[in-house]
Amino acid sequence: MNLKSLGEFGLIERLKAGCVIIPDKVVMGIGDDAAVLKGENGYLTLASTDMLVEDVHFTLSTATAWEIGYKTMAVNVSDIAAMGGIPEQALISLALRPEQQVEFVDELYEGLRECGRRFGVNIIGGDTVSSPRAMVINLAILGRVEEEACLYRNGARPGDILLVTGDLGGAAAALDALFTPRPVPPEALAYARKRHFQPTPRVTEIRAALPVKGLTAADDISDGLVAEVYTVAQASGVGFILEADAIPIAAATRELAALYQKDPLEYALYGGEDFELLLTCRPDKVAAVQKAIADACGTPVTPIGQVVPAEEGITIVINGERRPLPPGGYNHFQ
Amino acid sequence: MNLKSLGEFGLIERLKAGCVIIPDKVVMGIGDDAAVLKGENGYLTLASTDMLVEDVHFTLSTATAWEIGYKTMAVNVSDIAAMGGIPEQALISLALRPEQQVEFVDELYEGLRECGRRFGVNIIGGDTVSSPRAMVINLAILGRVEEEACLYRNGARPGDILLVTGDLGGAAAALDALFTPRPVPPEALAYARKRHFQPTPRVTEIRAALPVKGLTAADDISDGLVAEVYTVAQASGVGFILEADAIPIAAATRELAALYQKDPLEYALYGGEDFELLLTCRPDKVAAVQKAIADACGTPVTPIGQVVPAEEGITIVINGERRPLPPGGYNHFQ
Repeated sequence: MNLKSLGEFGLIERLKAGCVIIPDKVVMGIGDDAAVLKGENGYLTLASTDMLVEDVHFTLSTATAWEIGYKTMAVNVSDIAAMGGIPEQALISLALRPEQQVEFVDELYEGLRECGRRFGVNIIGGDTVSSPRAMVINLAILGRVEEEACLYRNGARPGDILLVTGDLGGAAAALDALFTPRPVPPEALAYARKRHFQPTPRVTEIRAALPVKGLTAADDISDGLVAEVYTVAQASGVGFILEADAIPIAAATRELAALYQKDPLEYALYGGEDFELLLTCRPDKVAAVQKAIADACGTPVTPIGQVVPAEEGITIVINGERRPLPPGGYNHFQ
Repeated sequence: MNLKSLGEFGLIERLKAGCVIIPDKVVMGIGDDAAVLKGENGYLTLASTDMLVEDVHFTLSTATAWEIGYKTMAVNVSDIAAMGGIPEQALISLALRPEQQVEFVDELYEGLRECGRRFGVNIIGGDTVSSPRAMVINLAILGRVEEEACLYRNGARPGDILLVTGDLGGAAAALDALFTPRPVPPEALAYARKRHFQPTPRVTEIRAALPVKGLTAADDISDGLVAEVYTVAQASGVGFILEADAIPIAAATRELAALYQKDPLEYALYGGEDFELLLTCRPDKVAAVQKAIADACGTPVTPIGQVVPAEEGITIVINGERRPLPPGGYNHFQ
């Protein structure tokens, strides 16, 4: 069997066994946005890593070096945010072609540092190696979260409300605008491009919401809303019912969808890379979570559905009709 | 300017500025074998990362998947050993071709886990992504070391004795045997191959030596003895005088050198990838360090020179004659 047949998630399941040999400090190993280790002074340590490969995650024809750097830091910070945590330290590995201009690496690092500055992350080490064929960046990030506040994917319970921060589908719309250039309204293009290359990891938002003590699970939307809903459903042993009309989609995203004759809901459901947070919340705490986040930074938080028992499966209400919501989203190797 | 002109170490110097924005917890950022963070209960946290790229660090024509996995873990564990530390947790990123067979990844992971088991390292997370052109593995490792025991590259002082663990040049000899196959005595080939693909990070050795309290600096020999001597010299602001006759070289390495008409001393000085430790030690503690390590695991520790004032530069005594020892060793991009 090759990896294409097995898929990314099948591979992860297969490799997990036997990985933790000294479990004393390991609260959560492989299987959430970040690993969780016992820490100090009431805090847990969070650790996560993400690798970005040229022509898979980015191409030099559409992204600037600065944007590649910024995004690499942002997607890692987002993993820490998805645990409720504060990002702190980063290690960066870069595989670069020997012919690469030094200025390119300067800009890439400036993107990394700029996102690091915005979210309080130090770059404390790394590795730089040559790679004759493709550029690769890996970032490993450390953070911390209060023991009682750590949010896992497995805490959603029937009756909880499904929330998302910000809006969805913009990063996917940007892909169409970047790879099939057409005359596009400049504001719509600028919005989508920023959504794609400078996602805002929702650290301020999640940190503002934690004191409300109503959140039960969190996941960041990297592979697409539906993919993450399935992930949380599986981890928590629950089902979901989503309301299509409630899913927040920006006007610019709708504008691009119309131009490319796409359904904006498809962008939002399956597009991925928005790096918003999917949250589940006790129903009596939704208003307080929304207010806490709005007060802290103005980011909207939208209820888009509900957690239901696992037997009800994963469905979506479109035009008043409840339909099965098929799985989908980005899966490496497939 | 391109990276080939600047070189790996020039690039690292250039990227360092502005990387640490919240210095509170950072004892040592970029510039040693591992980053050092303030920790808990009298321990410091160590963090390091190493990336291995297909056809740069390994080729599938000479290495098995298991060997690639084992070596990836070993070189990272070695970075923790070079700080005096105990390795604990690893995050692994894998970029793989979709056509890759699943069994290959199983074996690679079994190599990672096997080395992890030997040195007490959990695999707590990672990332798996597709890479159409070249396979890449990145490992980020966490460890800990007692605050007062942490060994940096900058602690060497004139009068200290230069020590190395084990023997040198075997990994370099293996490269000749692997890439220029000739009829080679099987024991010599097996020895060199093991040195190349299953280096033994010197964790037991350094942990046994620490209670003697005589070591002043440490570095692991990844880029070659001379390259690491230069690194420690620069970090500590000292010079070195090496004794060529004292440098430990295994009989198998000498045998391969003869067969490939190479100077075994060249292998030992410039070959790299032996992952032995270069240590500097107060002269009155050398015997106790040797005894502590021999008692713990039998590994020989050999005095091969002395730390001198920076003005004396870096020299080597060969056949009774003191000569300048030119810099050299592996440098990515060049």
